[in-house]
Amino acid sequence: MSEENSIYIGSKPVMNYVLACITLFHNGKKEVTLKARGRSISRAVDVAEIVRNRFVSEAKPKDIKIGTEPITTENGSTINVSTIEITLGKD
Amino acid sequence: MSEENSIYIGSKPVMNYVLACITLFHNGKKEVTLKARGRSISRAVDVAEIVRNRFVSEAKPKDIKIGTEPITTENGSTINVSTIEITLGKD
Repeated sequence: MSEENSIYIGSKPVMNYVLACITLFHNGKKEVTLKARGRSISRAVDVAEIVRNRFVSEAKPKDIKIGTEPITTENGSTINVSTIEITLGKD
Repeated sequence: MSEENSIYIGSKPVMNYVLACITLFHNGKKEVTLKARGRSISRAVDVAEIVRNRFVSEAKPKDIKIGTEPITTENGSTINVSTIEITLGKD
């Protein structure tokens, strides 16, 4: 799937990402993938749930993947963070 | 699936839940479901990833569900929180 369908969830307010997701669907995308890591993972789930419960009722979670990514910190050490990818799709 | 296979992820240290999950697998369970809501969702993903990457390498995420649950707050209002259920299974 092209990166054009992906939204990276960071620390902005949830509704910013909800709006980005709705916009992609309204522009004709059949699938949108929400990607997040660490503490933002719960926000990604919030975005998915708000989009499908309040705005795009045809959108269903089609695939949810979890994983681990190594991250190099400022002092040079490496820590692992968890990741999630939630793909919402319209049938 | 029986509730005996479920672990509710709260605000305790991640390794408490990792240990609980490993114990269930060592006691012969083929599947363990991690359940969390709100901010604990990212901790549930951490638990799943640590269990399968460090301790029970045969365990794979077999099913991941997200949802929304209404919660009544102390002052009587109702808010929605996101939920996740991650089922780890051995083949």
